[in-house]
Amino acid sequence: MAYERDNIRRLQAYVPGEQPVTDRLIKLNTNEHPDPPCSAVFEAMVSLDPKILRRYPCPTALEFRKAAATAHKLDPDQIIATNGGDELLRLTITVFCNPRTPEKNTDNSSQTSESFRGGGGLGVTDPTYSLYEVLANIHDTPVTKIPLNEDWSLAADMATQLNIAGVSLAMVVNPQAPSGHLEPVSSLQKLAENFQGILLIDEAYVDFAKTDALELVRPDSGLDNVLILRTLSKGYSLAGLRFGYGMGHVNLITSLHKARDSYNTDAISQHLATAAIKNRDQVAPTWKQIIAHRQNMAQQLTSRGMEVLPSETNFLLVKIPTGYKHPAPRIYQTLKEQGIFVRYFNQPRLSDCLRITIGTPSQNQTLLTALDKMNDS
Amino acid sequence: MAYERDNIRRLQAYVPGEQPVTDRLIKLNTNEHPDPPCSAVFEAMVSLDPKILRRYPCPTALEFRKAAATAHKLDPDQIIATNGGDELLRLTITVFCNPRTPEKNTDNSSQTSESFRGGGGLGVTDPTYSLYEVLANIHDTPVTKIPLNEDWSLAADMATQLNIAGVSLAMVVNPQAPSGHLEPVSSLQKLAENFQGILLIDEAYVDFAKTDALELVRPDSGLDNVLILRTLSKGYSLAGLRFGYGMGHVNLITSLHKARDSYNTDAISQHLATAAIKNRDQVAPTWKQIIAHRQNMAQQLTSRGMEVLPSETNFLLVKIPTGYKHPAPRIYQTLKEQGIFVRYFNQPRLSDCLRITIGTPSQNQTLLTALDKMNDS
Repeated sequence: MAYERDNIRRLQAYVPGEQPVTDRLIKLNTNEHPDPPCSAVFEAMVSLDPKILRRYPCPTALEFRKAAATAHKLDPDQIIATNGGDELLRLTITVFCNPRTPEKNTDNSSQTSESFRGGGGLGVTDPTYSLYEVLANIHDTPVTKIPLNEDWSLAADMATQLNIAGVSLAMVVNPQAPSGHLEPVSSLQKLAENFQGILLIDEAYVDFAKTDALELVRPDSGLDNVLILRTLSKGYSLAGLRFGYGMGHVNLITSLHKARDSYNTDAISQHLATAAIKNRDQVAPTWKQIIAHRQNMAQQLTSRGMEVLPSETNFLLVKIPTGYKHPAPRIYQTLKEQGIFVRYFNQPRLSDCLRITIGTPSQNQTLLTALDKMNDS
Repeated sequence: MAYERDNIRRLQAYVPGEQPVTDRLIKLNTNEHPDPPCSAVFEAMVSLDPKILRRYPCPTALEFRKAAATAHKLDPDQIIATNGGDELLRLTITVFCNPRTPEKNTDNSSQTSESFRGGGGLGVTDPTYSLYEVLANIHDTPVTKIPLNEDWSLAADMATQLNIAGVSLAMVVNPQAPSGHLEPVSSLQKLAENFQGILLIDEAYVDFAKTDALELVRPDSGLDNVLILRTLSKGYSLAGLRFGYGMGHVNLITSLHKARDSYNTDAISQHLATAAIKNRDQVAPTWKQIIAHRQNMAQQLTSRGMEVLPSETNFLLVKIPTGYKHPAPRIYQTLKEQGIFVRYFNQPRLSDCLRITIGTPSQNQTLLTALDKMNDS
């Protein structure tokens, strides 16, 4: 007997990048930072007394929020700490998107805003981070997809399209996954000003970019509908810690707090995340290094006849031109057999591309050597 | 401008027991274990290399699930690890309960199953753990409340009442909060057999009880609709770690996995939780001690003219009889002013009660002395 809701039964669950357990491989497929966490995190770990685990943690992660507020020059009430950025994504959907009516649940076809009465679905770009749509499907809210321009920038009329579709929450990754493209803040501001719902700007990769959108959540921005997502997974080498946070208008943050799990972040991760954010000066130099390695890798791959998109992240989207010696899926597979993992997306607009995380110089060189060997064979 | 869903705007958020940050008080209000975590957890903490944090954790917490499967003689596929027991509660509602239709969202009155078309709400006992109803309200699914009998046992016709109301998920705390009452397994089995939805048995306090309901999730139970919740917060002194797990039929666990956040538990908590569950022999003696202290406290409070309910948990529900020198809220307040925190619920059937966590012998004695002082004054 099937007990779960119809939308859960139909759900295609999110498939994360492969996470092989061995250390004996080069993992350039899920955009982790190549270096270990900074020394402040090591010191925080050593200084931590497991006795604190006996008691419940601070429900709102106040110490972390104070530290993040100082780092970003915001008020702690404008910040919510979450169990990874994932939780913030889920929470915003829970709080701002309406589920479908049960009568519509039997519709198994691709979902358009027309099939939804009452407004309030999720808007995303196409392509985008694939988790967004999965989270919307779990909540059973409709998804409106706005294609990106040829150069991966946002459609000029995106706000209008979202408004017509009755979307109540839009998620935009910036800098963008999977392309690495950076949308200018002025464009995001225009989108927020013209869009009638909440704009969540997912800045998971912002530490590797020239600009961020923080000005859109400052009290003097004149905007009350912008949320910024940050995570410690990428820039801080803390993917294993599951710690992210949201920043925005105090009213939005208050709504999110009401709907989160009562103690959504644990005492250890609060402690280590606070140490990490307080000591950003320890990790900031690594961001510059990765940017330098990214530029070098872009040159190297271009010189091998691949088409490399301009990237403001810690990865490169690499297009394998028609007529190249091997197609993208073959390159992906051959590298994998040698213990070098990159990411391949078998979907429109990406099926001739590989997404390659910037690793250590030695990992990057191993990848290039493997590519050369393939091309020589 | 209000952007959040109507049900979120109306929501009365869950209020956890007070979590004062100072150590200089006696905290008997949120049922934490009085002792620090076991030495295996300390050792696991010391042996942990923060370098592992660079990479994403195992999405399914496989090592923990294997250890828990060994401890409970189940298959790892029958187990899901969650970010505290809270996440399991939320997940089961997400997966098994249908939200209301938007047309019904404007109804601000108390929610009965009649106002819900399409079936699939949450069923709870009355009283129960207050978080259940909050989580249902966040999901916007209706709540059906079945009053407990005078002796705090389940209503004999509970399954029938749930079926008539079209409930698709029922949550029962056993041993029970806030009473401490233990429902026999035979009664839970009968409920599961006759109820057409999923029965979640919340065994947060089971480590302090005579029996558990594990037999209802064994493959030979003949039942496919039972989930058991466990947490490391109470019995393992790990409230700060946020680690819980669910056990049940493999089909139910598979559905829950589809809907959880992609990496819902972090690498450190997986590591420490695995150490804790593998070394249950280190904590089991403390459960016996707490049971002994509970019996002693029950006698002491009874001898002071209070009415103590039989408890199979690490707390006592204490009824202050009419005509007692001070009413319950006054006792609560006076103790609090002395730095002794107990729990008071200002709600029907509980407004003349205090819920007191069993602390260390010295904490328990301090509480008794404070009560005596109040009565002498």
